[in-house]
Amino acid sequence: MPSDRVLVIGGGPAGMEAARAALELGAPVTVVETRDRLGGTPDEANYAALTPDFADAGAAMRGMADAVTGNALADVRLSTRVTACAGEAGAFRVTLSGPSGDLIVEAGAIIVATGFTHFDPASANQSYGYYEFPDVITLPEAEKMLKDHRFVKPSTGEPPKRVCFVQCVGSRDRRIGNEYCSKVCCGVASKEAIEIRRLLPDCKVTIFYIDMRMYGHWEEQIYWPAQETYHVNYVRGVISEILPQGDHLVVRGEDTTMGRPMEVPMDVVVLSVGMVPSAGTKAIGPILGIAQDKNGFIETQGGVLNPVATSVTGIFVAGAAAGPKDLEDSVSMAGLAAAKAIAVTRRSALVAAGS
Amino acid sequence: MPSDRVLVIGGGPAGMEAARAALELGAPVTVVETRDRLGGTPDEANYAALTPDFADAGAAMRGMADAVTGNALADVRLSTRVTACAGEAGAFRVTLSGPSGDLIVEAGAIIVATGFTHFDPASANQSYGYYEFPDVITLPEAEKMLKDHRFVKPSTGEPPKRVCFVQCVGSRDRRIGNEYCSKVCCGVASKEAIEIRRLLPDCKVTIFYIDMRMYGHWEEQIYWPAQETYHVNYVRGVISEILPQGDHLVVRGEDTTMGRPMEVPMDVVVLSVGMVPSAGTKAIGPILGIAQDKNGFIETQGGVLNPVATSVTGIFVAGAAAGPKDLEDSVSMAGLAAAKAIAVTRRSALVAAGS
Repeated sequence: MPSDRVLVIGGGPAGMEAARAALELGAPVTVVETRDRLGGTPDEANYAALTPDFADAGAAMRGMADAVTGNALADVRLSTRVTACAGEAGAFRVTLSGPSGDLIVEAGAIIVATGFTHFDPASANQSYGYYEFPDVITLPEAEKMLKDHRFVKPSTGEPPKRVCFVQCVGSRDRRIGNEYCSKVCCGVASKEAIEIRRLLPDCKVTIFYIDMRMYGHWEEQIYWPAQETYHVNYVRGVISEILPQGDHLVVRGEDTTMGRPMEVPMDVVVLSVGMVPSAGTKAIGPILGIAQDKNGFIETQGGVLNPVATSVTGIFVAGAAAGPKDLEDSVSMAGLAAAKAIAVTRRSALVAAGS
Repeated sequence: MPSDRVLVIGGGPAGMEAARAALELGAPVTVVETRDRLGGTPDEANYAALTPDFADAGAAMRGMADAVTGNALADVRLSTRVTACAGEAGAFRVTLSGPSGDLIVEAGAIIVATGFTHFDPASANQSYGYYEFPDVITLPEAEKMLKDHRFVKPSTGEPPKRVCFVQCVGSRDRRIGNEYCSKVCCGVASKEAIEIRRLLPDCKVTIFYIDMRMYGHWEEQIYWPAQETYHVNYVRGVISEILPQGDHLVVRGEDTTMGRPMEVPMDVVVLSVGMVPSAGTKAIGPILGIAQDKNGFIETQGGVLNPVATSVTGIFVAGAAAGPKDLEDSVSMAGLAAAKAIAVTRRSALVAAGS
C-alpha cells in the first residue's frame, strides 16, 4: 500500500527544514535522529553564531526544532537509528531501532539528511601538532569557547595576544584523499576571527589561506568587515609546521604573496578543519542501498539541475550528507527534497488509485 | 477569495524549477516570462555547457521547459510582464501585460525568479579596452563561440595561440559599487578554459585571478582537471591594462605570487564579467513592493535559514534575483520557494474555510 508519509533521517538543519517543509505541505513526517535531541551539528558542537549572519546558533536551532515538534503530523524518534529498509518508492518499509525496540515505519519517500562531521587532524599527514600542543585547537573548539563569550589560550587560561587560523586542514589535500574544498571554512574562520577581535581588541588575528573562498554575498557580509572594521590580517601562505618555543608556538611556512619563508610567533593556532561525512552518512548508504562517492558522501545522480536525487528513486538527500554545504545550501536543498518527496508519494497514490 | 494558484515571475532555471515543483505538488501555476520562450539566461545567452557538469545547456533548458509546459495545470504567459500587484498573501491580484492586452491573475503566492544579467564592462573603471579592441571579449561571448564548437580570434577568424581570462571584472570592486563576489565566474571561466583546450590543444590558456573560488566539489570536478588534465595555467595576478601591440594584445599587470610586474602577449582576452540584477529584477521590486538591496537584487529577510523570504509575506525569491547564485543554488532555492508558496496558499485556504 502506498504511504503518504515522508521519513527524514537526521535532525540537523537540513533534516529539520525538510521535515518542516513536508509538514507544512500536509504530509505526515517521521524524523529519526540518533542523538537524544534535534539540532544537529550546530547544537552538538556548540556553535556560537551562524555564518554569515551571526544569528545565535542555539536559538536558531531551537526555533527549527520547535517548528517540527509543534506540528501534530510530526513523529520524532530520538536516540533511534535506521537499521533496515525494504520496499520501493511510494511504499518503503523502514526499520527503526530505538529505546523501546524495533519499529517498522511505512513511508512513501525518504530524505537523507545525515550530515557531516569535522575532519580530525589525526588523519592528516600534517596534523600540526594538534595532539601534542594544547594551544593548537580546531575551528569547532574555538567556536565552543566563543559560545561561552570567551577566548583563551588553553594551556594558561589567559587571553592570547596572537591568534592565527590555518585554512584547508583536511581539505584540498590529495595526500589524505580529500580533494574537495570544504566550502564553509573560509567563512567560518573569518566569522570567528571577527568574534575574537570583538572579545579581545588587543589580540592580533591572522588567517593563513590558499584562496579566500568568500563567495557571493559572504564577500561583503564577512570578508570586507573582517579586514576593514576588525583588522583581521589575511596572509596568503602555506604552513609547513607548528613548533613550541618557550611559552608560545611558532608557525613556520611560506608567505606566497611576498615569496619568502616566514616564522611567526603565536599564542593560539586554530586549525580550520573541513567537512567529512558523519558516521551516520557513511553508515546509511548500504542500509538504504544508495550510492556513495569515494569519500563516503551520498552521491547525487541528477547532475547540476537535480542536486537532491540519489541513485534510488524516492530517496533524496539534503545538506552536507551530499558533500560540503553551507547553511543556505542545506536549507534550500531541504525544501527541494521535501517537494520532490511529496511529489513521489502523490504519484504513487495516483497510480494505486488507478490500478 | 483565497487562491491556490502560484504565480512564478521569470522563466529561467529558477522559475522553471519552481513551477515544476509547484505543479508536481498539484498547484495550478502561472509562469510569466518577458521573452518569447522559456529557458532564461542559459538559453538567451547561448550557453554551451553547464557548470560544473558540462551538461548540454540547450538540452537541459528544453528539458526544464518541457516539464512545465507538459503539465495541464501550467499556464505559461510568454512575451508578458507583471505591471501591477494588489492584495496580500493568499489572495494577490496581479496584472499581466502581454500580447493580447492586460489580464488580472489571482494567486495565493508569488515566486520572483527574475534572475541576473552579465556585467557590462562599459560600467567599469577598468573596461580593459572592451569597446576598443575586438579581441577583448566577455565570458558569455566566449560561451557563445563554444556553443558553436569553435573558438577564434574575432579580428581574424583564426584560432588563437594564446588566450587568457581576467577574473573579477565587475565583482569585488568598490569603485563600481559591486562589493560582492559573483560566485560562479571562477567555475565558468575554468569550464570554458577546459573547452578551449579541448578544441585547440595547441592554444595556451591562462587564468588571472585574485582567489580561485572553486568551492565544494567544484575543486575536484573542475579545478584539478583544468590544471592536471588540460594544463590550464593559473596565475594569481592583478591586471592593470590591456593594450594592442601589432597583431596581438598585451596584458600588463602584477604577478602577485612572484611579486613582479608582468607583460604577457595574448591573442584573445576574455573578461570574466560578473552578475548584476537583470532589468526584470530591478523593475519588479517597486511593482510588488518588495525590498531590494543597494545593487538592485531582491533582499531576503529571513537570515541564513530562510534564503527565499522577501519583505512581503507570500512573496518568495529564487535564484540569482537574490544575488549571485550557481545553478544548484537556483534549483534548490526554487524547490524551497515552491514548498513555502504552497504552504501559504494552504494556510490561507484553511483560514478562509474556518471563517
